Amino acid sequence: MLTDLPLDQLISYRSSQTRPDDFEEFWDTTLAEARQHDVDVSAELVETGLTTIDTYDVAFAGYGGERIRAWLRVPAGASGPLPTVVEYIGYGGGRGHVLDNLTWASAGYAHLYMDTRGQGSRWSVGHTPDSAASGPQIPGFVTRGIEDPSTYYYRRLYTDAVRAVDAARALPQVDVERIAVHGRSQGGALTLAVAGLRNDVRAALAFVPFLSDFPRATRITDAQPYREVADYLATHREDVARAHRTLSYFDGVNMVSRASAPALISVGLMDPVCPPSTVYAAINAYPAPCEVLTWDYNGHEGGGPVDVERALTFLKAQLG
Amino acid sequence: MLTDLPLDQLISYRSSQTRPDDFEEFWDTTLAEARQHDVDVSAELVETGLTTIDTYDVAFAGYGGERIRAWLRVPAGASGPLPTVVEYIGYGGGRGHVLDNLTWASAGYAHLYMDTRGQGSRWSVGHTPDSAASGPQIPGFVTRGIEDPSTYYYRRLYTDAVRAVDAARALPQVDVERIAVHGRSQGGALTLAVAGLRNDVRAALAFVPFLSDFPRATRITDAQPYREVADYLATHREDVARAHRTLSYFDGVNMVSRASAPALISVGLMDPVCPPSTVYAAINAYPAPCEVLTWDYNGHEGGGPVDVERALTFLKAQLG
Amino acid sequence: MLTDLPLDQLISYRSSQTRPDDFEEFWDTTLAEARQHDVDVSAELVETGLTTIDTYDVAFAGYGGERIRAWLRVPAGASGPLPTVVEYIGYGGGRGHVLDNLTWASAGYAHLYMDTRGQGSRWSVGHTPDSAASGPQIPGFVTRGIEDPSTYYYRRLYTDAVRAVDAARALPQVDVERIAVHGRSQGGALTLAVAGLRNDVRAALAFVPFLSDFPRATRITDAQPYREVADYLATHREDVARAHRTLSYFDGVNMVSRASAPALISVGLMDPVCPPSTVYAAINAYPAPCEVLTWDYNGHEGGGPVDVERALTFLKAQLG
Amino acid sequence: MLTDLPLDQLISYRSSQTRPDDFEEFWDTTLAEARQHDVDVSAELVETGLTTIDTYDVAFAGYGGERIRAWLRVPAGASGPLPTVVEYIGYGGGRGHVLDNLTWASAGYAHLYMDTRGQGSRWSVGHTPDSAASGPQIPGFVTRGIEDPSTYYYRRLYTDAVRAVDAARALPQVDVERIAVHGRSQGGALTLAVAGLRNDVRAALAFVPFLSDFPRATRITDAQPYREVADYLATHREDVARAHRTLSYFDGVNMVSRASAPALISVGLMDPVCPPSTVYAAINAYPAPCEVLTWDYNGHEGGGPVDVERALTFLKAQLG
Amino acid sequence: MLTDLPLDQLISYRSSQTRPDDFEEFWDTTLAEARQHDVDVSAELVETGLTTIDTYDVAFAGYGGERIRAWLRVPAGASGPLPTVVEYIGYGGGRGHVLDNLTWASAGYAHLYMDTRGQGSRWSVGHTPDSAASGPQIPGFVTRGIEDPSTYYYRRLYTDAVRAVDAARALPQVDVERIAVHGRSQGGALTLAVAGLRNDVRAALAFVPFLSDFPRATRITDAQPYREVADYLATHREDVARAHRTLSYFDGVNMVSRASAPALISVGLMDPVCPPSTVYAAINAYPAPCEVLTWDYNGHEGGGPVDVERALTFLKAQLG
Amino acid sequence: MLTDLPLDQLISYRSSQTRPDDFEEFWDTTLAEARQHDVDVSAELVETGLTTIDTYDVAFAGYGGERIRAWLRVPAGASGPLPTVVEYIGYGGGRGHVLDNLTWASAGYAHLYMDTRGQGSRWSVGHTPDSAASGPQIPGFVTRGIEDPSTYYYRRLYTDAVRAVDAARALPQVDVERIAVHGRSQGGALTLAVAGLRNDVRAALAFVPFLSDFPRATRITDAQPYREVADYLATHREDVARAHRTLSYFDGVNMVSRASAPALISVGLMDPVCPPSTVYAAINAYPAPCEVLTWDYNGHEGGGPVDVERALTFLKAQLG
Repeated sequence: MLTDLPLDQLISYRSSQTRPDDFEEFWDTTLAEARQHDVDVSAELVETGLTTIDTYDVAFAGYGGERIRAWLRVPAGASGPLPTVVEYIGYGGGRGHVLDNLTWASAGYAHLYMDTRGQGSRWSVGHTPDSAASGPQIPGFVTRGIEDPSTYYYRRLYTDAVRAVDAARALPQVDVERIAVHGRSQGGALTLAVAGLRNDVRAALAFVPFLSDFPRATRITDAQPYREVADYLATHREDVARAHRTLSYFDGVNMVSRASAPALISVGLMDPVCPPSTVYAAINAYPAPCEVLTWDYNGHEGGGPVDVERALTFLKAQLG
Repeated sequence: MLTDLPLDQLISYRSSQTRPDDFEEFWDTTLAEARQHDVDVSAELVETGLTTIDTYDVAFAGYGGERIRAWLRVPAGASGPLPTVVEYIGYGGGRGHVLDNLTWASAGYAHLYMDTRGQGSRWSVGHTPDSAASGPQIPGFVTRGIEDPSTYYYRRLYTDAVRAVDAARALPQVDVERIAVHGRSQGGALTLAVAGLRNDVRAALAFVPFLSDFPRATRITDAQPYREVADYLATHREDVARAHRTLSYFDGVNMVSRASAPALISVGLMDPVCPPSTVYAAINAYPAPCEVLTWDYNGHEGGGPVDVERALTFLKAQLG
Repeated sequence: MLTDLPLDQLISYRSSQTRPDDFEEFWDTTLAEARQHDVDVSAELVETGLTTIDTYDVAFAGYGGERIRAWLRVPAGASGPLPTVVEYIGYGGGRGHVLDNLTWASAGYAHLYMDTRGQGSRWSVGHTPDSAASGPQIPGFVTRGIEDPSTYYYRRLYTDAVRAVDAARALPQVDVERIAVHGRSQGGALTLAVAGLRNDVRAALAFVPFLSDFPRATRITDAQPYREVADYLATHREDVARAHRTLSYFDGVNMVSRASAPALISVGLMDPVCPPSTVYAAINAYPAPCEVLTWDYNGHEGGGPVDVERALTFLKAQLG
Repeated sequence: MLTDLPLDQLISYRSSQTRPDDFEEFWDTTLAEARQHDVDVSAELVETGLTTIDTYDVAFAGYGGERIRAWLRVPAGASGPLPTVVEYIGYGGGRGHVLDNLTWASAGYAHLYMDTRGQGSRWSVGHTPDSAASGPQIPGFVTRGIEDPSTYYYRRLYTDAVRAVDAARALPQVDVERIAVHGRSQGGALTLAVAGLRNDVRAALAFVPFLSDFPRATRITDAQPYREVADYLATHREDVARAHRTLSYFDGVNMVSRASAPALISVGLMDPVCPPSTVYAAINAYPAPCEVLTWDYNGHEGGGPVDVERALTFLKAQLG
Repeated sequence: MLTDLPLDQLISYRSSQTRPDDFEEFWDTTLAEARQHDVDVSAELVETGLTTIDTYDVAFAGYGGERIRAWLRVPAGASGPLPTVVEYIGYGGGRGHVLDNLTWASAGYAHLYMDTRGQGSRWSVGHTPDSAASGPQIPGFVTRGIEDPSTYYYRRLYTDAVRAVDAARALPQVDVERIAVHGRSQGGALTLAVAGLRNDVRAALAFVPFLSDFPRATRITDAQPYREVADYLATHREDVARAHRTLSYFDGVNMVSRASAPALISVGLMDPVCPPSTVYAAINAYPAPCEVLTWDYNGHEGGGPVDVERALTFLKAQLG
Repeated sequence: MLTDLPLDQLISYRSSQTRPDDFEEFWDTTLAEARQHDVDVSAELVETGLTTIDTYDVAFAGYGGERIRAWLRVPAGASGPLPTVVEYIGYGGGRGHVLDNLTWASAGYAHLYMDTRGQGSRWSVGHTPDSAASGPQIPGFVTRGIEDPSTYYYRRLYTDAVRAVDAARALPQVDVERIAVHGRSQGGALTLAVAGLRNDVRAALAFVPFLSDFPRATRITDAQPYREVADYLATHREDVARAHRTLSYFDGVNMVSRASAPALISVGLMDPVCPPSTVYAAINAYPAPCEVLTWDYNGHEGGGPVDVERALTFLKAQLG
């Protein structure tokens, strides 16, 4: 069933989220600190049994200079810099098994698939720890360090995602003029964040993105993982304003404010996990051209493989 | 939690299923009838946007000569006959999107991915109708035509699966001496059935196979799709013996009785869908060498991508 | 809890469903084809152990001339033609046991209780198979053959229902001037369809009818069986328009457009299965007099036995 | 799935329940007190719209002389005393609507359908209040007055059930030599209780009977209504022995100890509500001939209408 | 997720409930009858192992003169009359264990914790039976005696609650000029009822109160215990008006109409049990000053211990 | 329903867990490192509104010297060292609100209620962060750092718990000769761990303890939080042995091996969270006298307030 507003209201919906005065300063400072560490990319060819794809075990310096793992996949024996997709992962997963996620490399792209710090256990394995202290939290990652923007988990993860593009640019297989960012759900949130924090990505492909319009998202769904915030605030009931202040520094609605790359965003009108109004909140705030894939009868799976098919077409148009 | 017997009892568990006297005759007749139709394979190259893999839209004559669809994927530009994997699909799915299921072709195999008649709607699309009349049934496919072995849905689908190997053998990309059959869940059941009904497959890779040990399976789990049988018999309560007679012609425990190919079978000890005793019933009835992957803490996902990794190694040993 | 609009909005609610230009032609052709087969009614007295009711095992030619089963119940030893109720069955059930459904015959009516092709397994047994091929479908009957109006399951079933009245008219116990049609849920949908497709029924008693206002029904509830459509379209996400075109030929809102018999329709304001707006969509489209039984605190059970009590009164007024 | 022991163990299972020394005295005294009130049966013909059945609104003096309601149904215009079925109702229901439950009268029996004090709200209406004070209790009826055998709800209800046979015997339509008792679930428990407390019933038909083998029943299922006892004892954790002492005066295993009428008892091997061992506990304690209907794939619905069909045959043999 | 209207609409929401013409007469008569019995308070010191609190086992004459139990807790060795909190209990619980609920006495108050007749089994034990006959009802207490205001369960319980203040006034530890009433959920409903029925309480502290705005409450939530009413009316579908008439004599919206004490009321905007509009219905009908604690992300737990903290501050201001 | 073995088998059940050879060395080293930091207790009187209890906000140096918060509650104005209860908290909670948990101080004890690092969000607030990096993990705390004993979360928390007793001993209100440790569920696990790691506690009161017999616990229940381990191993399926090696250093069965204080342990036979065999595994491994409270019909709530009542009696006997 529909989980949110009808389509005609979605199209004009605007979030009530506000942008902190020091939002840009916060992110400029955060990224500058991260860049004090050399990106220091390593890439080691691994044996996978695949013959059409070469796979590299990559690591680079993310937030705090900590080592972030990734897989780089390229068509076997590819020579010359390739158009590139930097991809981020959905909530709970990690960079997974070397035999998974072959589509982008099979389509001729260099594909950098970034691990998610601390996650990588629920539906695919990961190999990157999260490093920081965390105040009392609801199990999961959405309230880890929510006491303050400076300690919030997504400050570290968004920074990793920005640095993943720096890492990609340092790899010989990558054509630095043709980099797109991409992800689904949490990966879509990172995609939009990076699109807003960097001006050198050429396209942003965000499917059913998470972490957008927290004031509404935390009130209109009981589905995880937005529900982690409501669970936290049910107990920390006197900290509602403080938590929302933290979240405002990470809300997709604000993250996209400086984006310039063309975007392709998908949304499922029956999605209880990332209700469509919260996705449209980001779409309607996106300052550059944005193509929308609206799926009437889909939940959080959105357009599934058809989203990918459309993305291939979109990227061909953007990256040549 | 464990859903069945502990491992030490599984290892020696034998099903109480019995084999009908005319079991071999039933299948010999069924397959002979199907082979009265020419296999009549067509294969049309399709545009997918992928550069490392060539994909063909395949059709061939299955049960009753009806057209069964499939995808054939091979490494782009492959010349000469390839070792081949014929794969069958899990319950509810169809051959899906051209961008899915790239692993086997990426590993250098010809990969024929057979559509499942009538299904292809729950989690991936299909394009093959089921053709026959069906008596009163529980929604789904497990009780469709259960009144008699001759009308049972799986008579048609098992026959399609046998014919898919005939189709593969007729394709120029396929090395007829190096064909393996493979599948997960319902696809694993078809794998075991084909391994028992043909003597020309070189390996059988069945992950968490379904449709095995009906006398026990229909009594020890409430999970779908075995539950369809119990739901049917709850209403058709005077037809218990008749339904079990039908099922005995399709039970994995009986299907494998003439198998000669080495097998790799996986099982999850926390699997409620295909409880491990029902899988071990097939394993312990398997007359040829059988390697078992037992996953202590997995449900119906079994070994997931690690099952595939082990399969690559196993196939390399069997097919060279 | 209320599952839909409040009553004051229901009363004026109109569906957004549209009627295809060839709607009448489609049905005229369909019924004409069916009538090329003689209705060929057989009726065999069966032993039931009941002393006040005579029961006959009936069969007649439905869609495609296929044999459709039914029970005919009449007061024991009744002489002369009787006022008659032709009843259709709810989703998943069949004509059931001879000891069930004694009310109408006990009230002095001839009662023809038509089996539902292919169903008859979930909560009562049936004895009539469905005959046609079916493309990929969600388990159940609502998406069987949904690719096209000509192959859709309900084309066959609606035609059976129309032919059941022909069959009734051919039975000596039936007074052809006093026939009413009746059913609950799916049976209510068939009731409304027959009321629209025939001009010789004297009353239509539809309780909590199903299969009405698909554009809204498939979007406002997750309850089965409407959910089958949404499940199908979640996977067949590029076929939304095609599926809705098919459904428009079978939507209760359109089916009733030529109805002339007085109707009694019940609706439960807490019904998640057939949400009240979808029932009111049919009520508000009904062109002849229509009495409505609105139950404030009922779900899909509607008025239960009180619906039947009201129906007895209504029928006495209509049929004398 | 099977909810209990396998059939071979059920057949020899014996409950650990014990019989209190004053069990017979308790019931003799209880019934003697009830019989100090005249049974004082009233029966008023009601208008139902049915033509083959005459229905009477009956009331009689039950426990404490309180008025217990019932429906009496007989074939229309029946003359002479009829073989009779006194029926008791499942948990939560009442005597219901006049249009329901027509089978027994349609089969030529006088059918007295006793209301259940205080219940009659969950799935069918009732019209008889429960009269007594109740100590702290779990919502429902199974722990009402459980502090002591003298205050327990089922002391009153069992007594009503015994008195219903006295009431039947006082009705002119009833042949006092041919009375059977009957019921399903709670009604089955009352059937067994009456079979043990009276020596003048000619048959006992108990389908999936409740209220049997409390020591095991309260520990092996979480299904309601046995769960009410466990819920009560979870809070009243220091009263376990006291509650079980009360229950021992009402346990089917003890109630049947003086039964002499032939019995027909049904049981569903997948019944979570009245797990089969608890039913077999009563079967195996039954001192007179007992025919068992065992349904392999049924839950608490047991044999459904087939149970009734078998009951008609059984009664014909017992009552002539 | 939010379970009801947004806050800006809650603030002006008014219930559609109406007050019966004889509402005041009904309650005046009811209380006058109760007061014909002497309140007859007994209080016996009990051994608890606690050293800072003295605990008394209290009983007094409630509705019909029946003995109602309670705990009185006071600071150990307190001399002189104390400010006093009379507290009522949430649905299903009883006065519980002597070691529970120490807060009010630890804060220097005399604390009278009244048992709830008939309940006291679900989450804490009670020791007070309910005494009256009950017509057919849904398991629980909300439909017990709902046939008529005179027989309704809450007539007895509200009267007990009024009498508990009479009992408190008769205790030497209590300062009769400084009595507040208090409770959570059902206890909050009793608090508001007593605030409306007595003019001698100095403050009313009702957290997430139940039993308010029945016309809306019974339609907008499926959560228990409001759902008991809908369950009852689903079966007793012809008694809707009669039941609502009964409820109107007990609806918080009407009960508060004569209240004069300052109130503190809490509400959780994500409460499915007592949806916030039903609480605001009472708040907005409250004729005396009313402070509201609104918790954005809380369900039926409301403000939890923070509600209590605020209550301590509020009471200090009101009682000195 | 019973969730595990029957009582007669529980009494003799022994876990299959093994103790690592360097178990003692591991813990000796761990605690020695922690004690390199001065315990550095601070205690600040806080205003609570309570008059019978004085409450202090306490902090001390736990694992790694990190500040661990706690509440100290003592009878108001208590002079002289008091018998003392150091209490640990159940999974997900924190030290909570100052108005909660008054029982022990009200009974005359000094009560030190230790916060749980990182938790304190699910059902009560906490104020202590967890400090360490965590590898990929399932949301929650049971798999945080499970890669190695040295990084495992419970290494830090068990050490905090040991240090809490050091902190208690440094407080002037505490009689160092009369200290007991206590907790429920996770708090019970910490209680048993401290009883094994220190020889100066006089009693251990562990109710329904968690974290015991991991080899069995992770296989026989799907309830959280044991399920976190199974969820982790479902994904990290090749790390089963490594994870169990880590867990063996923290398993209650091993932790108690050096315990000398008399223990009181409670267990619920219907507990799905901490199944009774896992509790009996610790009981049967406990080398000092151990009194067991077995609750037949209770789940994870165990004996609830009656456990506390028994604990008061037990402590009086042990501490005088």
